[in-house]
Amino acid sequence: GFAKIDGHRALRCGAAEIVYGASKTKEQIAEIAAEMLGSGQKTVLITRMSPDAAEFVSSRLPLDYNEAARAGIAGERPAPDGRGKIVIATGGTSDIPVAEEAAVTAQALGNEVTRLYDVGVSGLHRLLAHTDEIMTASAIIAIAGMEGALASVVGGLADCPVIAVPTSVGYGASFGGVSALLSMLNSCASGVSVVNIDNGFGAAYCASMINHIGVI
Amino acid sequence: GFAKIDGHRALRCGAAEIVYGASKTKEQIAEIAAEMLGSGQKTVLITRMSPDAAEFVSSRLPLDYNEAARAGIAGERPAPDGRGKIVIATGGTSDIPVAEEAAVTAQALGNEVTRLYDVGVSGLHRLLAHTDEIMTASAIIAIAGMEGALASVVGGLADCPVIAVPTSVGYGASFGGVSALLSMLNSCASGVSVVNIDNGFGAAYCASMINHIGVI
Amino acid sequence: GFAKIDGHRALRCGAAEIVYGASKTKEQIAEIAAEMLGSGQKTVLITRMSPDAAEFVSSRLPLDYNEAARAGIAGERPAPDGRGKIVIATGGTSDIPVAEEAAVTAQALGNEVTRLYDVGVSGLHRLLAHTDEIMTASAIIAIAGMEGALASVVGGLADCPVIAVPTSVGYGASFGGVSALLSMLNSCASGVSVVNIDNGFGAAYCASMINHIGVI
Amino acid sequence: GFAKIDGHRALRCGAAEIVYGASKTKEQIAEIAAEMLGSGQKTVLITRMSPDAAEFVSSRLPLDYNEAARAGIAGERPAPDGRGKIVIATGGTSDIPVAEEAAVTAQALGNEVTRLYDVGVSGLHRLLAHTDEIMTASAIIAIAGMEGALASVVGGLADCPVIAVPTSVGYGASFGGVSALLSMLNSCASGVSVVNIDNGFGAAYCASMINHIGVI
Amino acid sequence: GFAKIDGHRALRCGAAEIVYGASKTKEQIAEIAAEMLGSGQKTVLITRMSPDAAEFVSSRLPLDYNEAARAGIAGERPAPDGRGKIVIATGGTSDIPVAEEAAVTAQALGNEVTRLYDVGVSGLHRLLAHTDEIMTASAIIAIAGMEGALASVVGGLADCPVIAVPTSVGYGASFGGVSALLSMLNSCASGVSVVNIDNGFGAAYCASMINHIGVI
Amino acid sequence: GFAKIDGHRALRCGAAEIVYGASKTKEQIAEIAAEMLGSGQKTVLITRMSPDAAEFVSSRLPLDYNEAARAGIAGERPAPDGRGKIVIATGGTSDIPVAEEAAVTAQALGNEVTRLYDVGVSGLHRLLAHTDEIMTASAIIAIAGMEGALASVVGGLADCPVIAVPTSVGYGASFGGVSALLSMLNSCASGVSVVNIDNGFGAAYCASMINHIGVI
Amino acid sequence: GFAKIDGHRALRCGAAEIVYGASKTKEQIAEIAAEMLGSGQKTVLITRMSPDAAEFVSSRLPLDYNEAARAGIAGERPAPDGRGKIVIATGGTSDIPVAEEAAVTAQALGNEVTRLYDVGVSGLHRLLAHTDEIMTASAIIAIAGMEGALASVVGGLADCPVIAVPTSVGYGASFGGVSALLSMLNSCASGVSVVNIDNGFGAAYCASMINHIGVI
Amino acid sequence: GFAKIDGHRALRCGAAEIVYGASKTKEQIAEIAAEMLGSGQKTVLITRMSPDAAEFVSSRLPLDYNEAARAGIAGERPAPDGRGKIVIATGGTSDIPVAEEAAVTAQALGNEVTRLYDVGVSGLHRLLAHTDEIMTASAIIAIAGMEGALASVVGGLADCPVIAVPTSVGYGASFGGVSALLSMLNSCASGVSVVNIDNGFGAAYCASMINHIGVI
Ligand SMILES: Nc1ncnc2c1ncn2[C@@H]1O[C@H](COP(=O)(O)O)[C@@H](O)[C@H]1O
Ligand SMILES: Nc1ncnc2c1ncn2[C@@H]1O[C@H](COP(=O)(O)O)[C@@H](O)[C@H]1O
Ligand SMILES: Nc1ncnc2c1ncn2[C@@H]1O[C@H](COP(=O)(O)O)[C@@H](O)[C@H]1O
Ligand SMILES: Nc1ncnc2c1ncn2[C@@H]1O[C@H](COP(=O)(O)O)[C@@H](O)[C@H]1O
Ligand SMILES: [Mg+2]
Ligand SMILES: [Mg+2]
Ligand SMILES: [Mg+2]
Ligand SMILES: [Mg+2]
Ligand SMILES: [Mg+2]
Ligand SMILES: [Mg+2]
Ligand SMILES: [Mg+2]
Ligand SMILES: [Mg+2]
Repeated sequence: GFAKIDGHRALRCGAAEIVYGASKTKEQIAEIAAEMLGSGQKTVLITRMSPDAAEFVSSRLPLDYNEAARAGIAGERPAPDGRGKIVIATGGTSDIPVAEEAAVTAQALGNEVTRLYDVGVSGLHRLLAHTDEIMTASAIIAIAGMEGALASVVGGLADCPVIAVPTSVGYGASFGGVSALLSMLNSCASGVSVVNIDNGFGAAYCASMINHIGVI
Repeated sequence: GFAKIDGHRALRCGAAEIVYGASKTKEQIAEIAAEMLGSGQKTVLITRMSPDAAEFVSSRLPLDYNEAARAGIAGERPAPDGRGKIVIATGGTSDIPVAEEAAVTAQALGNEVTRLYDVGVSGLHRLLAHTDEIMTASAIIAIAGMEGALASVVGGLADCPVIAVPTSVGYGASFGGVSALLSMLNSCASGVSVVNIDNGFGAAYCASMINHIGVI
Repeated sequence: GFAKIDGHRALRCGAAEIVYGASKTKEQIAEIAAEMLGSGQKTVLITRMSPDAAEFVSSRLPLDYNEAARAGIAGERPAPDGRGKIVIATGGTSDIPVAEEAAVTAQALGNEVTRLYDVGVSGLHRLLAHTDEIMTASAIIAIAGMEGALASVVGGLADCPVIAVPTSVGYGASFGGVSALLSMLNSCASGVSVVNIDNGFGAAYCASMINHIGVI
Repeated sequence: GFAKIDGHRALRCGAAEIVYGASKTKEQIAEIAAEMLGSGQKTVLITRMSPDAAEFVSSRLPLDYNEAARAGIAGERPAPDGRGKIVIATGGTSDIPVAEEAAVTAQALGNEVTRLYDVGVSGLHRLLAHTDEIMTASAIIAIAGMEGALASVVGGLADCPVIAVPTSVGYGASFGGVSALLSMLNSCASGVSVVNIDNGFGAAYCASMINHIGVI
Repeated sequence: GFAKIDGHRALRCGAAEIVYGASKTKEQIAEIAAEMLGSGQKTVLITRMSPDAAEFVSSRLPLDYNEAARAGIAGERPAPDGRGKIVIATGGTSDIPVAEEAAVTAQALGNEVTRLYDVGVSGLHRLLAHTDEIMTASAIIAIAGMEGALASVVGGLADCPVIAVPTSVGYGASFGGVSALLSMLNSCASGVSVVNIDNGFGAAYCASMINHIGVI
Repeated sequence: GFAKIDGHRALRCGAAEIVYGASKTKEQIAEIAAEMLGSGQKTVLITRMSPDAAEFVSSRLPLDYNEAARAGIAGERPAPDGRGKIVIATGGTSDIPVAEEAAVTAQALGNEVTRLYDVGVSGLHRLLAHTDEIMTASAIIAIAGMEGALASVVGGLADCPVIAVPTSVGYGASFGGVSALLSMLNSCASGVSVVNIDNGFGAAYCASMINHIGVI
Repeated sequence: GFAKIDGHRALRCGAAEIVYGASKTKEQIAEIAAEMLGSGQKTVLITRMSPDAAEFVSSRLPLDYNEAARAGIAGERPAPDGRGKIVIATGGTSDIPVAEEAAVTAQALGNEVTRLYDVGVSGLHRLLAHTDEIMTASAIIAIAGMEGALASVVGGLADCPVIAVPTSVGYGASFGGVSALLSMLNSCASGVSVVNIDNGFGAAYCASMINHIGVI
Repeated sequence: GFAKIDGHRALRCGAAEIVYGASKTKEQIAEIAAEMLGSGQKTVLITRMSPDAAEFVSSRLPLDYNEAARAGIAGERPAPDGRGKIVIATGGTSDIPVAEEAAVTAQALGNEVTRLYDVGVSGLHRLLAHTDEIMTASAIIAIAGMEGALASVVGGLADCPVIAVPTSVGYGASFGGVSALLSMLNSCASGVSVVNIDNGFGAAYCASMINHIGVI
């Protein structure tokens, strides 16, 4: 095959092997996923896959595709086996695709997910209405574009690690997510770390690791 | 003199004539201020003036110098004659110099000022404890460095115009205030506008204009 | 619904509830606007809506769509009830779409608007011919791309707050509005504050707040 | 006092209350720390404190100051009570100050620390000699300036969360840490998240949270 | 003709004359290449040529087109006459187009090429499996997007010059290759120099010069 | 000598030979200038020279030093022999050092200079009071920091070429002159070209060339 | 009409009135140009006009359209009446569209033009072959993308003013012309000034002003 | 010791072991160098060492210190054993410190060096006078600040690899070397690769590798 499947890493990293669909043809995606499932992998997460590629793949493999996320799970979705729940919060409705990528990833890696969408800081009551979920999470993924303030406010409320994801949502001086990224890197709340712009996958991977600490 | 004093503008702009001390010698500052007071101006605001220059000026003129602000009022401080109060809020204690520049400016222009310092968003209860002041202000100046989230949260709570001032407080990816500046420009709260990094003066000038609308 | 309608904010903010159409489908826009009108809101402003979406919405609701602005008013346009007029000035003809977004927003929020278009500073007589409108405004929105000098010149002439809007008009070193943005942030005229690139809506929201101070 | 001590946060966040010394006078630092210890806090971590301030503080309080870290622990250093060890790795010797800030922080928050310094990727054998420590850590802090490649290589080897800290070490196109920051944000290894340039404190805070999950 | 063919340079620079197809029509490309072959040049390398242009050119000239590289060799491919082999390594599969541009160029200039693709640093064993090829190369071209760490790791292993090529592969904070570029410029391994983003051609040209030193 | 004196250029370029003092010791400056005067050059312009170096040089050579400009003329100042006058305008008083560098340069190259200082666009009447000088200039040098709007306004008024010089005056988002630079590059007035930040010398050199066209 | 025609400027600025077509419909362009010709203007230059718009305009007006330049002259092309020739040089063939915009503009403003295309500095003999044209020009327009070195080399050879135009030609770290722009602003040759990226029009306008000095 | 001496690398890399003095105390530098010489290394190159540190080191070890370069050779300087000469060219005299760092490094690694200083492209005759040295070099190091054009011109003349070094010499829009860096990365001459700003050491290391190819 054109890509070296990394068996050793698959063993180590958790419930699912992962295929990054961004620069692959639908045939390549289907072939890689089939090869993985064929060699005993139960769950294969495929990210950055177009609806069109998903249709092709699902004609060859069992695939649970999430269109908003542009990601899907081939094979079985594993039962949640983490320590607690991962909360995924977004500032606005436009951040939902990134949040769903995070959600699908978290589920493929064996986590239970709570979604808190459109709870941006310009209307604090929307966020404060969910203080319970925030206080009891294992890890929180805070997703926001534009000014990215959500991460700081959530970080201030929560006692658990917060993974911040800047999104490319916005216009003008949002600079494709740079404004939110800088905001999050400068968060004055402790316990906040940051992943790349729009990288819902990466945030969920970190959160899943945290949620599985000490779980065999 | 070396700088053209702008009498016409002085008439228009309000209670005080303004001297920007940044690139002037202490002798120049004293001479300009004296000339202004001598030609009938009651109040002269001097910004960006070092303690050393202030000492020199106050040996020649009545000067009320605010060291944190690096600004002072020569002549009389006018009685407040605005519609209501200007609230000046900061995210942290390091933002206080900028806030004090805003406060001195606002007072020189005839405004009553309420200070809410160190009410950053990583500890929301500190800000929420002041909801009353926020809800009753004529205009609010929200001053923050690092992630600059204060402007959005205040903008979401308040009904009045919010002037956001990014500060150069921070390190690393705060880039001397750029991170806070971008954050504030992207605020998802309506009614927020922004001035230059560390420009406490400019924010107070805007806020004073707003607080004096319809006041003769 | 998919977006939480923020009733409390609607009460506070003025004449109109606002829908940001940018990342919503035409069906979503129509549904949200209908829900708002149905629950008693008289005026709903919809911004960043394509002509195609506008056609769909207006087949279901009374909609007054402004194609240049890509914005429209569903329901009734309120009678102006502000203190005075809002002047909207642009440097060139290419800035008109942003200006019209500001104009529609200002009207939806109950303001009377004066348009001064194509009065850029490379031909000063065009601007100086309107000194009267500038001197008597409640608030001025100065909109310009490229070098953004309009804000400073207008700020120097006017006695009222100036909200500056950089536009993404230009090419090369205009960097999609960054050049105008920086220019406006550095304005040497007092009383100028700035909103995001192309954010006609935000500028008008600020200007309307200013124009309604003390109006019940 | 000039800064509002945030008792509630102290309860929640772990073993130590934290004072950020950067913009405070030595008198302020000593006063705040004394107040905290006086009101029952056992451990107070003070970061970004100059040797000079440390001398002043330690003349008034029991202080264990780490000069490389520019940080110290007032009161008692808590016994480690985390799940395992936190590994702190640096690319070069110039990154040691940031690493020591992380180490002092981790210890103040009740963690055992393993230091792997000067294991940069241009001499892989130096890093590979420590595969054991890397494979058995609870969390790893990867600290590097210049090209920041350490985070990716460590992330590829390890099974636990990696917190990456770019440093301002370097010259020319390192741009004060920006190069390393971007490199780390783009890490192709999963499980890597990033904090601000030179923010050893923040990384250790995150790592400590992870190392204390499920610990009462 | 519209472009001045530079006969003198052709003599000096080696096995092939080069046509940069990027801003030329297919007719122009064919005409220039034909003119070169007609005046005695044995090999003409054409880079940045679309499949469509390639089809047109090959209907008129003998052309060996590499679609991944978007480059082709008109005339004869020269026999390798360099000192040794040029190794071309990539971090991921998405970097292959740039690698193939380098490979075609190297071959057109008379070099033998070894391809090591998808050996990125997040899975070190993939790279270490090729230590032999790395240790025996004349020159190595290290191609990577995102965090660009490959150049440093290869540079640390190898004894020969390494030419690093950042690629525009990635998203978010990869900024179209800037992140990888900065990373490579800051490489802490000695013997690494850098060419422009996606410039596979330029890297191969340098590598070929090195591989032909002292070859008449 | 350590620097190659470029006799040919001296012949071509006009009234004066030029020494750029920035990275030279006072001994080097004096030696080079003496060598030039000794070999028949009548006028030597020395720029970027500290007061200390100037004192040293003037103890060995006839030197007319302008402290604001940090530049001086060794030998004779030539009589003006250009077509008309060069107008040098500045936005504020802080721009005067750059303006004086331009003035000294222009004079050393045989031009008559008119200074219009502190005529920034936030007080248009100050500029409009000098319409006559602007309309009759051979060339105009427009110098401004912060928002740099002066160049556009002057360019709109004048019929002659305008050379714009951004200055590093300002703070925050002025970014050491970048804001003014971008503003000037985007000028919507025709006939404006731009030189480097703080490059008063370069602007005067261009203006002098223009003022000497057709002069033998 | 929608755009205010600026009669006064037309009188002052030279042979032609100018229409900037970039954001205008073909109907608007035709209407404005017709109005200008109708009110006595002999020559109207239209820049940034698509071939499609040109076809429309030329069906209504006499139009001489230059497709490479995307610019055309409506009405008559004036006879050259400048002092000498304007040389237009480009680094590569991809810069020709910008050069042709400059050429059409220069001709519309009454200048004779000499084209030196594809004379980039990586093959110096191509440029040196034209030393005569360079030494006898009234003004030179140096146009280059990528590294923009042409301006410095030409500036070193020539005795007349050089207007440098960076172009957006290039890829990767050319950043849409920023690299060439910075290079040109930093030119170590005296007498070089710079206009915006791709602004062939602006450069020709400056050059024409210079070429007409003292011409009635 | 505090730094791990990398014996294996020393064997591989050539004539000298290298100490990067930038963040080390003079005692550390002396200790490391002594340890190296003591364990049989004949030559130790020390870069980025202050005159003060050099004085200290030379009181303990035989040291040949080059003050301009801020670098020195401890132990013996090896006899040149490369294939040919390395030419080191600079644009101006201010670039000499970087050039001398390159020269000392090249000599420490066993190379013969030819210096061509102050041959910048604004006076081409200065460079062309050295065509012979350029045509016969094994490798050329082209060092320039400001517009960095030297690399392209040299690259166009030479047949051997050119390593370009941008320097931080300049002001304003030179941005500490970024302008020259971008210029060099975009060089239109083939065979040019680039190292970090001011990295004379790195360039010489690459050049030495090239000059020793096939040398046992
Ligand atoms: N959305 C995503 N963003 C960034 N990296 C991803 C994403 N999805 C998957 N990956 C990474 O891509 C790797 C698989 O790449 P590949 O072998 O090319 O399919 C995974 O192990 C992840 O590290
Ligand atoms: N801190 C400040 N930041 C920015 N502008 C200021 C500041 N203080 C004063 N100014 C402006 O400077 C003008 C006075 O400048 P000058 O005539 O040079 O003293 C005032 O009218 C204000 O517009
Ligand atoms: N053109 C615009 N630019 C920025 N923000 C806008 C714009 N139009 C509306 N908004 C904001 O978007 C909010 C509505 O968002 P939503 O609830 O997603 O429809 C409003 O309250 C405004 O704060
Ligand atoms: N290619 C161009 N780039 C920049 N500015 C231009 C260009 N062409 C024309 N202009 C300017 O645009 C003005 C005409 O603009 P308008 O009135 O909108 O047609 C002219 O006077 C020129 O100053
Ligand atoms: Mg928290
Ligand atoms: Mg509000
Ligand atoms: Mg005003
Ligand atoms: Mg890992
Ligand atoms: Mg190596
Ligand atoms: Mg003009
Ligand atoms: Mg010249
Ligand atoms: Mg060459």
